Amino acid sequence: MAKKKNAFYAQSGGVTAVINASACGVIETARKHKDKIGKVYAGRNGIIGALTEDLIDTSKESAKAIAALRHTPSGAFGSCRFKLKSLEANKAEYERLIEVFKAHNIGYFFYNGGGDSADTCYKVSQLSESLGYPVQAIHVPKTVDNDLPITDNCPGFGSVAKYIAVSTLEATFDVRSMCATSTKVFVLEVMGRHAGWIAAAGAMASTKDCELPIVVLFPEVLFDKDKFLAKVDGLVKKFGYCTVVVSEGCHWPDGKFLAEQGTRDAFGHAQLGGAAPVVANMIKEALGHKFHWGVADYMQRAARHIASKSDVDQAYAMGKAAVEFALKGHNSVMPTIDRVSSSPYKWKVGMAPLSKVANVEKMMPKNFITKDGFGITDKCREYLAPLMKGEDYPPYKNGLPQYVTLKNVAVAKKLKTTYELKK
Amino acid sequence: MAKKKNAFYAQSGGVTAVINASACGVIETARKHKDKIGKVYAGRNGIIGALTEDLIDTSKESAKAIAALRHTPSGAFGSCRFKLKSLEANKAEYERLIEVFKAHNIGYFFYNGGGDSADTCYKVSQLSESLGYPVQAIHVPKTVDNDLPITDNCPGFGSVAKYIAVSTLEATFDVRSMCATSTKVFVLEVMGRHAGWIAAAGAMASTKDCELPIVVLFPEVLFDKDKFLAKVDGLVKKFGYCTVVVSEGCHWPDGKFLAEQGTRDAFGHAQLGGAAPVVANMIKEALGHKFHWGVADYMQRAARHIASKSDVDQAYAMGKAAVEFALKGHNSVMPTIDRVSSSPYKWKVGMAPLSKVANVEKMMPKNFITKDGFGITDKCREYLAPLMKGEDYPPYKNGLPQYVTLKNVAVAKKLKTTYELKK
Repeated sequence: MAKKKNAFYAQSGGVTAVINASACGVIETARKHKDKIGKVYAGRNGIIGALTEDLIDTSKESAKAIAALRHTPSGAFGSCRFKLKSLEANKAEYERLIEVFKAHNIGYFFYNGGGDSADTCYKVSQLSESLGYPVQAIHVPKTVDNDLPITDNCPGFGSVAKYIAVSTLEATFDVRSMCATSTKVFVLEVMGRHAGWIAAAGAMASTKDCELPIVVLFPEVLFDKDKFLAKVDGLVKKFGYCTVVVSEGCHWPDGKFLAEQGTRDAFGHAQLGGAAPVVANMIKEALGHKFHWGVADYMQRAARHIASKSDVDQAYAMGKAAVEFALKGHNSVMPTIDRVSSSPYKWKVGMAPLSKVANVEKMMPKNFITKDGFGITDKCREYLAPLMKGEDYPPYKNGLPQYVTLKNVAVAKKLKTTYELKK
Repeated sequence: MAKKKNAFYAQSGGVTAVINASACGVIETARKHKDKIGKVYAGRNGIIGALTEDLIDTSKESAKAIAALRHTPSGAFGSCRFKLKSLEANKAEYERLIEVFKAHNIGYFFYNGGGDSADTCYKVSQLSESLGYPVQAIHVPKTVDNDLPITDNCPGFGSVAKYIAVSTLEATFDVRSMCATSTKVFVLEVMGRHAGWIAAAGAMASTKDCELPIVVLFPEVLFDKDKFLAKVDGLVKKFGYCTVVVSEGCHWPDGKFLAEQGTRDAFGHAQLGGAAPVVANMIKEALGHKFHWGVADYMQRAARHIASKSDVDQAYAMGKAAVEFALKGHNSVMPTIDRVSSSPYKWKVGMAPLSKVANVEKMMPKNFITKDGFGITDKCREYLAPLMKGEDYPPYKNGLPQYVTLKNVAVAKKLKTTYELKK
């Protein structure tokens, strides 16, 4: 087998506006080191592509197509929601990975994802050694939830934060215009099942130059209906209107999500609704205000058109650093974003051992949320502001962003065995 | 009374990303003709400001602040949902308007809105003459619904169309990445209670260069559940995923909106939901696909950050033309956008008599919708494409667009009478 090893890259979990910028960083950097790294194979639909030996040959893509990944949202090779079981529960999965890596002479494993994939990455690095086929496993951080430890922030989050802050600003201006005779409360539902980072970004729409009445409902703060309604009532009395940014993870003291209000359709079936209509109807019923509500859903994490430049730069830098770490012989690590200063914003690339990253969830610090539980502190603003900074517009043609769709040419299979995924 | 008359400007109905660009066009053009037009007064919260003599003196705003209106969404002076009654039902309302105009030496009435305000504008021009205080009434077109007659399109629509096309493109890329193991259908709810112009824009995300499976549910097409589910099923089988863009006005053959599915909360109260969750749950139940859904609501019409340059230019041009028409002595007219050619896109300012604009609603032509009722034709694409063309980014500071909030200084009241609004 050749001394020069190939690399494997896969995207994991929910995709973001900038995960492809990390892919771009990985592939472009690997291409600059053809003396040491052979081809970069990508997993079709993430790690599943490795398990089923469905690999994509990225060398078939032009330099122009790879460069366009930097401004293309979503996962260009497909992602998946598939968590490998623990070693004890399903060692065969890990053995299969190594089998595929061995067959395709893969010596570098770049896994681009959140907490679960950091854990997988860590286990692969450990097991590959004990199975006699050592693979350098490097995790590339990605998650809109911003909940990975050690790194100051996660690529993907800054762009969502910018989208939510801009959308909150714009919708709040709208309701401000209409409130004399029409809508008085606008409710926006945002992502974040456990951590309120994204919801916090909504509060960034209000600044010292332009104060706007915005109420945030965090998953970290148990929902108190009376206190919340009193807050909305006070703001509408003072300003004439207000905006509520509600995290999908906001829940009652008993742990039940606001969105699970027991809503039923005409046939009595439990209805999967959103937190936004629940909150909006609650306000209407108690205070009588006319409302509008929106749900940002996939739009927020796919909104490459309004990505933060900090975020795009960092996503690319993480991909690039992952390859550079591998070339330096590192294993079982993750590049991190280390903040040097907030104002002016300075950051550098750091390194964290995967043993300390895997299975640790970073929540919002208590001193980032105001005492009343409905807003963010100056400390939080100082943290968030640089992550949303700068614009990095994609190129447009006929009014639409020019996002790339890759050819995604399959690598010929080498194994005679197939692998059935266990659900 | 001075020979030089003042002007009155008011914003009406739902605001848009570019209605302030029209205000900018009115005020900047009026300021260039100070020999003929005195001050421009704006109605605080639209026509209500005129009825209650709550006028804003726009001359107190700096040139810089007025220029910033061009890139600021929402209604800078406040808008309202308040339709004047017919002359027969409440002549007093019209008499009050004339009384206020007379007291403040207002000879020009610029009303920025949709069909209802065109009607009001028309009646004011007629009545003012018969009351012996002639006012030149010019309507400035605005509506995201794109439903005004004669004009090729309405300022406000192009930017919503661009936002919806871009959001649909981005979210569809997202679901395409996830469909192997997770979400297979994404449902986006958009505005448009009567006309499907905005929903049609969602289909623009699919192009010859990049074909995407998008199903549109128009208000013009009676909802056929079986046919719809078969369409979704076919696309998911072929592509692995699909996106549904549903207009809020989509309805069953009996006229009931999809959103009014008789959904009830835990207490049995009828729940105001959206069309998107209804459609998403319908697909889940029949086909079993995992779904996500979003509701663009106010975000779509306030999204100045991704406004279409065509739209911004036209909104400004309509405001400018309205003042120029007034200076030329025209009355009871509306500037229009006349398309000269689609490719390359060329347009010029035209003029329509309000008698032909008032109370006429322009629906989508039948030949703009595909035979199966779920898509748009090439003719529709040719119409929509230029309206979404070009970007016109606002300036940013610290990651946020720099939208202006005016001082909105009140004009001293001159009348001793007050006016109570009739609901």
